[in-house]
Amino acid sequence: MRLNVAVIGGGSWGSTISKVIGENYANKRIEGNVTMWLYPETYNSVDLAELITTTRINSKYLPGIELPKNITVTSDIYSAVDGADVLVVAVPHEFLNKILQQIKNKVKSDAVAVILTKGLFFNGSGMELISSTIKKTLNIRACTLMGANIAGDVANSLFSECTLGYEDEEIKDTLLNLFDCKYFKVTPVKDSGAVEVCGTLKNVVAVACGIVSGHKEGANTLAAVIRNGLLEIVKFCDMFVQKSSTSEMIPRVFFESCGVADLIVTCTSGRNFKYSRMAAEKNIDISRIEEEEMNGQKLQGYSTIKDLKVFIEENKIEKEYPFLYAICLSASSDLSSKRILEVIQNRTE
Amino acid sequence: MRLNVAVIGGGSWGSTISKVIGENYANKRIEGNVTMWLYPETYNSVDLAELITTTRINSKYLPGIELPKNITVTSDIYSAVDGADVLVVAVPHEFLNKILQQIKNKVKSDAVAVILTKGLFFNGSGMELISSTIKKTLNIRACTLMGANIAGDVANSLFSECTLGYEDEEIKDTLLNLFDCKYFKVTPVKDSGAVEVCGTLKNVVAVACGIVSGHKEGANTLAAVIRNGLLEIVKFCDMFVQKSSTSEMIPRVFFESCGVADLIVTCTSGRNFKYSRMAAEKNIDISRIEEEEMNGQKLQGYSTIKDLKVFIEENKIEKEYPFLYAICLSASSDLSSKRILEVIQNRTE
Repeated sequence: MRLNVAVIGGGSWGSTISKVIGENYANKRIEGNVTMWLYPETYNSVDLAELITTTRINSKYLPGIELPKNITVTSDIYSAVDGADVLVVAVPHEFLNKILQQIKNKVKSDAVAVILTKGLFFNGSGMELISSTIKKTLNIRACTLMGANIAGDVANSLFSECTLGYEDEEIKDTLLNLFDCKYFKVTPVKDSGAVEVCGTLKNVVAVACGIVSGHKEGANTLAAVIRNGLLEIVKFCDMFVQKSSTSEMIPRVFFESCGVADLIVTCTSGRNFKYSRMAAEKNIDISRIEEEEMNGQKLQGYSTIKDLKVFIEENKIEKEYPFLYAICLSASSDLSSKRILEVIQNRTE
Repeated sequence: MRLNVAVIGGGSWGSTISKVIGENYANKRIEGNVTMWLYPETYNSVDLAELITTTRINSKYLPGIELPKNITVTSDIYSAVDGADVLVVAVPHEFLNKILQQIKNKVKSDAVAVILTKGLFFNGSGMELISSTIKKTLNIRACTLMGANIAGDVANSLFSECTLGYEDEEIKDTLLNLFDCKYFKVTPVKDSGAVEVCGTLKNVVAVACGIVSGHKEGANTLAAVIRNGLLEIVKFCDMFVQKSSTSEMIPRVFFESCGVADLIVTCTSGRNFKYSRMAAEKNIDISRIEEEEMNGQKLQGYSTIKDLKVFIEENKIEKEYPFLYAICLSASSDLSSKRILEVIQNRTE
């Protein structure tokens, strides 16, 4: 097999997946180039791409992890995507549109995008999956790769599962071969949209868990928050992606790693959980936490919440999603757990 | 409404549920007696039932929590069940049969049992739900009450959800009224058997989480263990209770508190998890942990595992339940995480 891969994004997750792919190229004797693109930036006054090329370590975003020698690192987006058969999209959601505009018309027409980026494009009352945006902008196929994957643990080869959401049967095996390995087990599921929605809304539920935990609620309460979050994620998929569940049965995809497992990890160990808890404990705004504790990096959960709140209000679906809406209200105002728990307490369905 | 309730079992969970019921009697003006029966035993040389009657505190099993005044405490099993309309069964699994034999023919014929006890009766190649045992022995109706309910948190009125598994529509509302309150939300589900199986097998999965965590695997790995455990619990219900799931869809009951939520709590905060982790870390037998750390109390997960292992072997269903069986093997021998993770890594379905 000959395959050129471009990983778009050299943060902790982009670097980690590059490591997985690079190792698979070596171990499975796949031929072709693996290129990791990262935004031009410096670390300790040195160009980061050059530093990684020399040291094999992404000291800024994935310190202590050696990247395989067969990965080329660059900050030139055009050379990265030139001739690529697979585009692994791992940039933060807020930078995605700009990058898609840059590489438009530069990508092979039979290439396939694999989306690692979490986020939906809310635009007032409208909503679009990232896969739809990519299909429209680049005119190529797109699928998703998401699951219970704290980057540092995968980078350290601790065992993880992952879900490949696909639509196109033809490319499934090629992609499995690219990503699957002994410590990173990939399961394919023909339901790409649900995988994307899970990946995005889990961060919203994690914010709720952080708030509730910061207010010293117990383990039972946290489990109730996760469970109620899962139920509204299912409903969201029914309404905006594809109606699949019934009052008695729920699609298997929510039992995949991208569903219940990713929720568990994100809501108990993820950044959105941890920093929301800290904000609730200290009773300070999340923007202060982002500044003081995260070097100005933004939490995905809060930017999703901002857009989701407008989306729910514009579409007048507050009653359909009382739990997600309560999270939006709490996170946007006083980080109180009251509204969130009231919804669970009063639920009648 | 007039209703006599006997809570059979005065451990931490029996005491906690007595508190919930007692409060509901006072707040909802339900008439009748609430009696908590506990095994005759002493605490600091004083009869425990008398001590609780005097101090309103179960200092041995639920210290620091005041029980409502309307609860009568007794060690006389016959006076406890005499005239009871509802028997709340909260004794440990290993004592259940003996107590059922004692109260046989002493119970009102239209009484209903509510099972809080976790466990299945494995008997070599045979298996019986506790509800079936109770129905057979006492000749009364039975349903189950299980969920993400760490006792101490419920006792402290921290918000929890719970699932009432019932079969008989007629008694549902009466039981909801008895248990449901502001901090303990009970959802009815007409699938009592699945609720029971979840309550029992969650402890087996929690043992696996403890072993894997004790071997310093990461959060992603733990989520994978919980997820794979859930999938085999579903399969177990399909095979031994009622075939409900398909390759695409899974019954809603597993999304109730008794399912995914209870698994999350038990596998991250429960006793079976904590002490298994300790045993794996120290590389010592679980029986030593039970002696040294638990005053000789037994972990439910391990007694279930012992019976489940025989059950799987006698029925030759090792291949149908590779994950549960790997847990049985690991827990019965070296507490190694290798077998458990190998099953997940090699899974092809």
